Amino acid sequence: MAKPYVIGIDMGGTNTVFGIVDARGTVIASSSIKTAKHSDVNDYVDELYNEITKLMADNDTIGKINGIGVGAPNGNYYTGMIEEAPNLPWPSPIPFADLMTQKFGIPCIITNDANAAAIGEMTYGAARGMKDFIMITLGTGVGSGIVVNGQMVYGHDGFAGELGHVIMKRKNGRTCGCGRTGCLEAYCSATGVARTAREFLELRSDESKLRELQIEDITSKDVYDCAIAGDKLAKEIFDYTGNILGEALADFTAFSSPEAFIIFGGLAKSGDLLMNPVKEAFEKNVLGIYRGKVKILLSEMKEADAAVLGASALGWEIKED
Amino acid sequence: MAKPYVIGIDMGGTNTVFGIVDARGTVIASSSIKTAKHSDVNDYVDELYNEITKLMADNDTIGKINGIGVGAPNGNYYTGMIEEAPNLPWPSPIPFADLMTQKFGIPCIITNDANAAAIGEMTYGAARGMKDFIMITLGTGVGSGIVVNGQMVYGHDGFAGELGHVIMKRKNGRTCGCGRTGCLEAYCSATGVARTAREFLELRSDESKLRELQIEDITSKDVYDCAIAGDKLAKEIFDYTGNILGEALADFTAFSSPEAFIIFGGLAKSGDLLMNPVKEAFEKNVLGIYRGKVKILLSEMKEADAAVLGASALGWEIKED
Repeated sequence: MAKPYVIGIDMGGTNTVFGIVDARGTVIASSSIKTAKHSDVNDYVDELYNEITKLMADNDTIGKINGIGVGAPNGNYYTGMIEEAPNLPWPSPIPFADLMTQKFGIPCIITNDANAAAIGEMTYGAARGMKDFIMITLGTGVGSGIVVNGQMVYGHDGFAGELGHVIMKRKNGRTCGCGRTGCLEAYCSATGVARTAREFLELRSDESKLRELQIEDITSKDVYDCAIAGDKLAKEIFDYTGNILGEALADFTAFSSPEAFIIFGGLAKSGDLLMNPVKEAFEKNVLGIYRGKVKILLSEMKEADAAVLGASALGWEIKED
Repeated sequence: MAKPYVIGIDMGGTNTVFGIVDARGTVIASSSIKTAKHSDVNDYVDELYNEITKLMADNDTIGKINGIGVGAPNGNYYTGMIEEAPNLPWPSPIPFADLMTQKFGIPCIITNDANAAAIGEMTYGAARGMKDFIMITLGTGVGSGIVVNGQMVYGHDGFAGELGHVIMKRKNGRTCGCGRTGCLEAYCSATGVARTAREFLELRSDESKLRELQIEDITSKDVYDCAIAGDKLAKEIFDYTGNILGEALADFTAFSSPEAFIIFGGLAKSGDLLMNPVKEAFEKNVLGIYRGKVKILLSEMKEADAAVLGASALGWEIKED
């Protein structure tokens, strides 16, 4: 019989959040550490071990953990490795699942952060009961987790679902962190929105509250605040962003014909400001046979919860010896 | 126990090819009828019934057929319907699987033609043993069949895998048969190659053997013949086509990270003339983590065989009552 609890870990470039989760998906206890503090990944694993052991002791779950699931940038489900993750301080590749399994004496499975969020959404959120959907995470970057026939799409090598790096502008596209140009991520991430703001402010001369800010410090949150306050240029920045995202979702639909897209992450908090232009562009650009059929939904989960819960769900995949 | 034979039917806009197939994938007999001859789909089903019954009688397989599989344009695996297929003469939707099952008294399953080809390739061709690959069919149009985790991707509604209708040119794109502009199909189908030839000949003034032909009658075969004979402009047409296809495959890789793309259909006969620029553009455009990992292969099957064999494989999905 499976043990009654699992541990979910959401590793971000800045913070690592973790929790103990029961079989009903309740996070019974959680905490966090700073990811970037340790220049050696072994020190990071040591601190995780100390903190999680304390959390387990405080909650009477020592010896009762079925498995550990981790959502990590560029985490590979098949190999257990983290490879070439630009926001992590450690040399690549990192045999992270092995390091964790050895340190904890509990089996550990990893996947990338967007896949973990998709598993969370499928198990506990807006995608409950769906067999075909695509999770789009709009944060510092743009990530994706794709579910087909009720299964995560990991692909041949475990690296499927990098939809943030589909090319949306083939000519004069913005440079992207991946070293190429024109990627979806360069336009529709939180940083993409800030870049659009700087572009619009430099190229145009119309009035905007955004001009009261230092142009290089403008964030997507500033654009949101101005748009909500009625600023026309700020609204246009969301229209521009939503239009590109809607075009992208229309193309993705031709791939797996999903029941829904679930939009998740910091930028998803913009709500209708982003979703209205996304939906409009989607219906305008999608192939006729899909029109009016695909839902575009906001995530129903708290951001931290989705990642921790989704990662923790991997802990149930571990079979008894 | 399953009966020892299946029937595979490949329905094209012009011809319908069908065959009796044994459990080892040998087409033991085959024949064809004209699709477009019948303005009423019931007459078409009647002729199919008469011809296939004759074929079964001649080959002593009456009462020994486990199921009928059909690959049809816009054929829907889930509903058994053919919907809005632009190249078929009958009003949409057509409950084709039901019509066939009733007429033959043998269970019939349908899917679209590209999916049928992918199943054929997975069962008998270049994708044997692969769990993640994408079949790209380059004919009059551009079709696709996607396999993830060893399963066909049908999507929520049965219409997944329309990769010919991903947008490759967002500005000033060519009109496509689907009513939109800039689709992959408008550039990388056989008709797309002919359109590129006409564009190049009109916009440029350099020497080419293609100028000896009536511009409106030029086919992809003409472009191929000239390119093989050393014509520089004709070669450039293949470079242009291959470059766009390579860019598209690079984007598709970010979706499902396939082990291979299998290129199939009339235009695949161009061999290296097309494949070299495809591979070059693919490696140049694909995200770093996939570089050098994805095979781009030509189909190993005869075109008619792949479709009939692929469709016939559906006939084995039928379980005994």
